[in-house]
Amino acid sequence: MDPTGRRENKPRQRGRTMIIDKGLGLRAFEDLLETAGEYIDMIKLGFGTAALYPREVLQKKIHLAQSANTCIFPGGTYLERAVHQQMADSFLKTASELGFTGIEVSDGTTTLSRSRRSELIIQGLDYGFSVFTEYGKKGWGSSIQLEELIETVMIDMEMGAELVTIEARESGVGVGIFDEKGICKDNELEQVLAALPRSDILLWEAPQKDQQVHLLKMLGPDIHLGNIPPQEVIPLETLRRGLRSDTFFQAEIWRAIEGSVVHEN
Amino acid sequence: MDPTGRRENKPRQRGRTMIIDKGLGLRAFEDLLETAGEYIDMIKLGFGTAALYPREVLQKKIHLAQSANTCIFPGGTYLERAVHQQMADSFLKTASELGFTGIEVSDGTTTLSRSRRSELIIQGLDYGFSVFTEYGKKGWGSSIQLEELIETVMIDMEMGAELVTIEARESGVGVGIFDEKGICKDNELEQVLAALPRSDILLWEAPQKDQQVHLLKMLGPDIHLGNIPPQEVIPLETLRRGLRSDTFFQAEIWRAIEGSVVHEN
Amino acid sequence: MDPTGRRENKPRQRGRTMIIDKGLGLRAFEDLLETAGEYIDMIKLGFGTAALYPREVLQKKIHLAQSANTCIFPGGTYLERAVHQQMADSFLKTASELGFTGIEVSDGTTTLSRSRRSELIIQGLDYGFSVFTEYGKKGWGSSIQLEELIETVMIDMEMGAELVTIEARESGVGVGIFDEKGICKDNELEQVLAALPRSDILLWEAPQKDQQVHLLKMLGPDIHLGNIPPQEVIPLETLRRGLRSDTFFQAEIWRAIEGSVVHEN
Repeated sequence: MDPTGRRENKPRQRGRTMIIDKGLGLRAFEDLLETAGEYIDMIKLGFGTAALYPREVLQKKIHLAQSANTCIFPGGTYLERAVHQQMADSFLKTASELGFTGIEVSDGTTTLSRSRRSELIIQGLDYGFSVFTEYGKKGWGSSIQLEELIETVMIDMEMGAELVTIEARESGVGVGIFDEKGICKDNELEQVLAALPRSDILLWEAPQKDQQVHLLKMLGPDIHLGNIPPQEVIPLETLRRGLRSDTFFQAEIWRAIEGSVVHEN
Repeated sequence: MDPTGRRENKPRQRGRTMIIDKGLGLRAFEDLLETAGEYIDMIKLGFGTAALYPREVLQKKIHLAQSANTCIFPGGTYLERAVHQQMADSFLKTASELGFTGIEVSDGTTTLSRSRRSELIIQGLDYGFSVFTEYGKKGWGSSIQLEELIETVMIDMEMGAELVTIEARESGVGVGIFDEKGICKDNELEQVLAALPRSDILLWEAPQKDQQVHLLKMLGPDIHLGNIPPQEVIPLETLRRGLRSDTFFQAEIWRAIEGSVVHEN
Repeated sequence: MDPTGRRENKPRQRGRTMIIDKGLGLRAFEDLLETAGEYIDMIKLGFGTAALYPREVLQKKIHLAQSANTCIFPGGTYLERAVHQQMADSFLKTASELGFTGIEVSDGTTTLSRSRRSELIIQGLDYGFSVFTEYGKKGWGSSIQLEELIETVMIDMEMGAELVTIEARESGVGVGIFDEKGICKDNELEQVLAALPRSDILLWEAPQKDQQVHLLKMLGPDIHLGNIPPQEVIPLETLRRGLRSDTFFQAEIWRAIEGSVVHEN
């Protein structure tokens, strides 16, 4: 049911949802895909968690995600760790052999030169991965440097990044566009959007419900949202469709705006 | 084990627990009923989530709930959406065909006239549903209007509502009897209770543990509690029985009060 | 993967992790052990929850934990309840018959004389249990009495307790070493450590991620941590190994400190 009349089926170009999986077991993972697979576009095995699964469990999760036509990739911190230990090549090779279909290139914890960043994007593409890059530092109180962000997004796009993620960690507090109370800094957000030629390259990490509601109301139901906890995928989808109080009447506005647009489904 | 000596078996008239399910998969749902089914009286598929399940998953959940003698119903917002789109009849028919055994009639998001509200209750009863009504607005900072609440409860009861829910949303913050910090407004609560001929018609939404503890201590272990997260059902049951620190000594008071009452089990 | 080069395999003497299970069903429990069993040393069925499982579910969970070489024990409040009702003997006998491999001796809610406490430890050992004792009151705002703590730890150790838990409840707020905001009271912590001949007898309850990060940074990756929510076991293990931003660079410090130590694995 979709009172907004806007939601595309998978694979969709608009309104993609990325979940962060911090260690779901196989039964929970099957539950997730069986129940909400249609609403999940990407699955990130958060930070370095992918390194800690028994091999056969990891393998099984990757296959299940593939079968559900869902992109699956290890967290950026894991690749940062590999780069830091001069093992990026081996990381990419193993990720490919395991069947991961994406990677995340980030420098949330470490420092990465522009050229090394571009190199990693290109290497990732060579392996056939969807490459998601990330902008932002994980440190407490980190914020957005507008010029740096714009430049990063523009070059990442040019290099072939599929989406550029705006960092908010798993907590959504005191990082990037969210202040120390998790409130969105609207001004900065608007500056970012004003400076970019297209906004649909951005994936907003928004782990908390209030943040999802805020961004959806501000930017519409078609924005890409990430770091969604697995149990919040269906609730988020109700928000996108106006099936929950917070966006109930918004749904009609969205529908009206959409008006004449024709979708393939 | 029940040091209070008070808990009835299902189907119970006192101390009912309603959980809010925001999208559990089948394995998690089976886990829940197998482990805690005895402590769950009603399951609400929160807000519009029921619309988003694959049909066979939804069907299976409903059947599992039926087999566990647990009432299952779609969230009130879903019916509000249907009413808003002039599709209430079709909603009730489909819910009945799917095997739902209850409905929730609410106006947390939309406006419902008294006559339309009564009509929906009667229609629900005609379909054989247990009808739960709800008092309260979902908007931030919404509060209780005492006279309106009393009148609503009295008429809903007369119309055949099984319980009247006092709204607190999934968050339990800044809504109904809970202030913007989730603290209970005791004065308002007492006014409500003083004005009603019987209090056991009320189902208190109390998603947070502190709220559950507070209401149990204030009103006793036999109150009906709702919007309990699935993973909190067993913890809540330990509170009702004095098997957790917060109500450990309270259990003896409850037992002493109960004294002479004889239960069937 | 372990950039710190420090983690032992099970059964390990350093850096043990205890999780608090508030009512997981069998499928979730199997998921947990299959996915993260290698990182779980002890499982506590929190407070009185063990009393509320259907017998066959409880039995199955205990057997699964045994098969995974994980110690499993009922929460301290449950034993306190039994002591309070003069049923401690029957409690210990039943726990043993059910296959529990540990018990927790605490006085978080009730009062226990030193001699009764020692008696319970000895009785537990006689049954073959690993005995975990706990220091601290569950009441809001409770804090640590230094002399009392030292004496308790010393005597518990002498009596044969395997570890002494420092109480923080499930919430980690306003109790023991954590203030009303969940912030660690470093001064008190240091006083405790300075006064004890060995610190590896202590198991720190630290339910919140920030608390885990703080204690790991302050005391190193080899401390024992408890009351970890099941879904946080793998994230905690990434913290212990420097696979998450918060302890990424710490990992190298830990590795450097370790330097010459040789592990069996």
